[in-house]
Amino acid sequence: MNNERVNASIITIGDELLIGQTIDTNSAWMAKELNKLGIWVKRRVAVGDVWDEIWNALDEESRQSQIILITGGLGPTADDITKPLLCTYFGGKMVVNEEALQNVITIFEKYIRRPMLDVNLKQAEVPDVCTVIQNKRGTAPGMWFEKDSKIFISMPGVPNEMKGMMTDFVLPRLPSMFSLPAVVHRTLLTAGIGESYLADRIKDFETALPSHIKLAYLPNFGMVRLRLTAMGKNAAEITSEVDTLFTALQSRLQDVMVINEDKTLEEAIGILLAEHGKTVATAESCTGGYVAHLITSIPGSSAYFTGGVVSYDNSIKENLLSVKSDILANHGAVSEETVRQMASGVKSLMKTDYAIAISGIMGPGGGTEEKPVGTVWIAVAGSNETVAQKFQTRYNRERNIEVSAIHALNMLRQSILSDR
Amino acid sequence: MNNERVNASIITIGDELLIGQTIDTNSAWMAKELNKLGIWVKRRVAVGDVWDEIWNALDEESRQSQIILITGGLGPTADDITKPLLCTYFGGKMVVNEEALQNVITIFEKYIRRPMLDVNLKQAEVPDVCTVIQNKRGTAPGMWFEKDSKIFISMPGVPNEMKGMMTDFVLPRLPSMFSLPAVVHRTLLTAGIGESYLADRIKDFETALPSHIKLAYLPNFGMVRLRLTAMGKNAAEITSEVDTLFTALQSRLQDVMVINEDKTLEEAIGILLAEHGKTVATAESCTGGYVAHLITSIPGSSAYFTGGVVSYDNSIKENLLSVKSDILANHGAVSEETVRQMASGVKSLMKTDYAIAISGIMGPGGGTEEKPVGTVWIAVAGSNETVAQKFQTRYNRERNIEVSAIHALNMLRQSILSDR
Repeated sequence: MNNERVNASIITIGDELLIGQTIDTNSAWMAKELNKLGIWVKRRVAVGDVWDEIWNALDEESRQSQIILITGGLGPTADDITKPLLCTYFGGKMVVNEEALQNVITIFEKYIRRPMLDVNLKQAEVPDVCTVIQNKRGTAPGMWFEKDSKIFISMPGVPNEMKGMMTDFVLPRLPSMFSLPAVVHRTLLTAGIGESYLADRIKDFETALPSHIKLAYLPNFGMVRLRLTAMGKNAAEITSEVDTLFTALQSRLQDVMVINEDKTLEEAIGILLAEHGKTVATAESCTGGYVAHLITSIPGSSAYFTGGVVSYDNSIKENLLSVKSDILANHGAVSEETVRQMASGVKSLMKTDYAIAISGIMGPGGGTEEKPVGTVWIAVAGSNETVAQKFQTRYNRERNIEVSAIHALNMLRQSILSDR
Repeated sequence: MNNERVNASIITIGDELLIGQTIDTNSAWMAKELNKLGIWVKRRVAVGDVWDEIWNALDEESRQSQIILITGGLGPTADDITKPLLCTYFGGKMVVNEEALQNVITIFEKYIRRPMLDVNLKQAEVPDVCTVIQNKRGTAPGMWFEKDSKIFISMPGVPNEMKGMMTDFVLPRLPSMFSLPAVVHRTLLTAGIGESYLADRIKDFETALPSHIKLAYLPNFGMVRLRLTAMGKNAAEITSEVDTLFTALQSRLQDVMVINEDKTLEEAIGILLAEHGKTVATAESCTGGYVAHLITSIPGSSAYFTGGVVSYDNSIKENLLSVKSDILANHGAVSEETVRQMASGVKSLMKTDYAIAISGIMGPGGGTEEKPVGTVWIAVAGSNETVAQKFQTRYNRERNIEVSAIHALNMLRQSILSDR
């Protein structure tokens, strides 16, 4: 193996990325795919539709990386200067590409069904010094240039079109052009422990890792994903090496591990419920349906999610979930007593094995001295017992809802596990 | 006014952005907020946790822009080298900031309730050559440096923490330091019309705009936001100019306009319901609680949202929402008849003025020849009548749920408006 790391730079072109109109999801996807091949994204740069800035970015990034991926700036409108610029930059002249032309004509005939404009036909023109990457999902072709042993790949910014070109053409072609290392990832999800405590707990494990194996902490909403990544010459060797380490890591984190795959908490719960043939229902006040939404975001969740009640108004808690009015009057909607009754209420209403109930104050208003914004009571009713717990979140309304939902799902998970 | 444009560069630091683990939503938000002040984001650069690369990015971007915003690299773990680097770059030495220390201690006492680790205490250390930006939402303070009449602002990468610092400290402070143009925005939200049709309809309006006033199309989930932006020397002058144009634009788009402010559809509905003193309930199948979640994401929604039922299993549709079993047997759960009964069922169950019901097939599985994935039936029950409509979405599960929820909310809006 050549020991030199193969670096890539991603250049995104377009004013819409600089005025905050578009969130760049392309770069993350591209980086993930390149990583799988053992290619490291060294830099990402976003520039506007300005000749000099694009030109300088090409110069600059080709000094940093062997592969320069360029997205955006290939639309039919007049302000897209990327294609003529690339033509000049690589010293070519524009020619019509017959296959790309046929593609534009077909798309207009089959899907758009309106007369083509000159600007649409112009999309089939490409510099004569590139390898054309045909676009099966749109009208703008991609372009592959090579110069001074660097590779430049220009693709449209539409995520779907870019992904098609990467998958069909770019990703299969790159490995043959570089001597790339083998790369193996192993991921596990933890919940209920913060990043710094986790790091403290497995400090010695991390310190003892060989230099070609890295541990990454990926925190998100009260959960931390841990990823081991090994790079090396021999795929079988590093796989067995990383698997041994991964087993050790799992046994050290058993009490906080949610799942030993690159999956979300709601996926992990879905797998658990499906495995055990159990069902769940939700009774939500403060999270307003978000827990049910997370559970049902997983394909096939209808096998284990029966339904839910969003009991925003107290009358719904009383009439539908059978929370006693004196409980509400004496303890309030945000109390242990109320969530316990909500959980058992929705469990018998929906005839499920498990039920989640949640009631809290998400803010910005509604807090009191005794129950400040962020106070959340969660109950999970299982086959034998109902567990209730109080949490205190400390974010804005949006994030308080998200974090509370994660707490609730994790309590459900623990309840299912304790029933095994 | 100084005619020189004030440019900003955004540098994001962290390997997680280069391995595709995190999608950068910070930059878009920052760019939007800077734009409102008349500051133009010229470049965005993402670099890894590597000393030389961060250093070079600081050099490079300070040649391009007057303001350099830096996010990320300030966490408590060992791989974060940003703070010592900034200390060296600006020639300072590390000192403990008392206010930041007190903040770390308070957060641990109030929320985390575990002993602090050394790495946590280290977060209160800052270079003595910066102005400290206190972090009300986390433990890592921000830092404001000035060098060679350039401003460098370092903030945590956690979106919530960065936004707090920008809103409370950075955005109010920047205008006094530059001679910025006056900027006026006017935004309206449309629904039910595609971007290209909208553009076609107001082509002459757009062409006739003076050069200092721009129209931007900001499409999002079947809705398009239109934004008029005027820049100029005299705030009063451009305000009156843009207001006249905005009135003209509104009258041309009356039939598709949701609201003439920079608000979301769920905010617009909240305002409508509150104004009319009306209430709403939801009965959701395929969206699994997402419509209720959108409605309750708005602070104060308890004034008009009574509650909802997520009737994932057909037994819940029958028993709780009083959908007749022969309707389910003969027409299926995804049918006009079913959503009409779901709507009237939840409306009488929750005793509300309006009710939304939705049932569909979000995919990837569950489609049939007759009812393919993406088929959605929505009904809205109002005071006089129930309106039902069928939609066909064409995305993945996640986006199908989002788009369906938007359709449902827009039908509710139209129903409220027709009752006025």
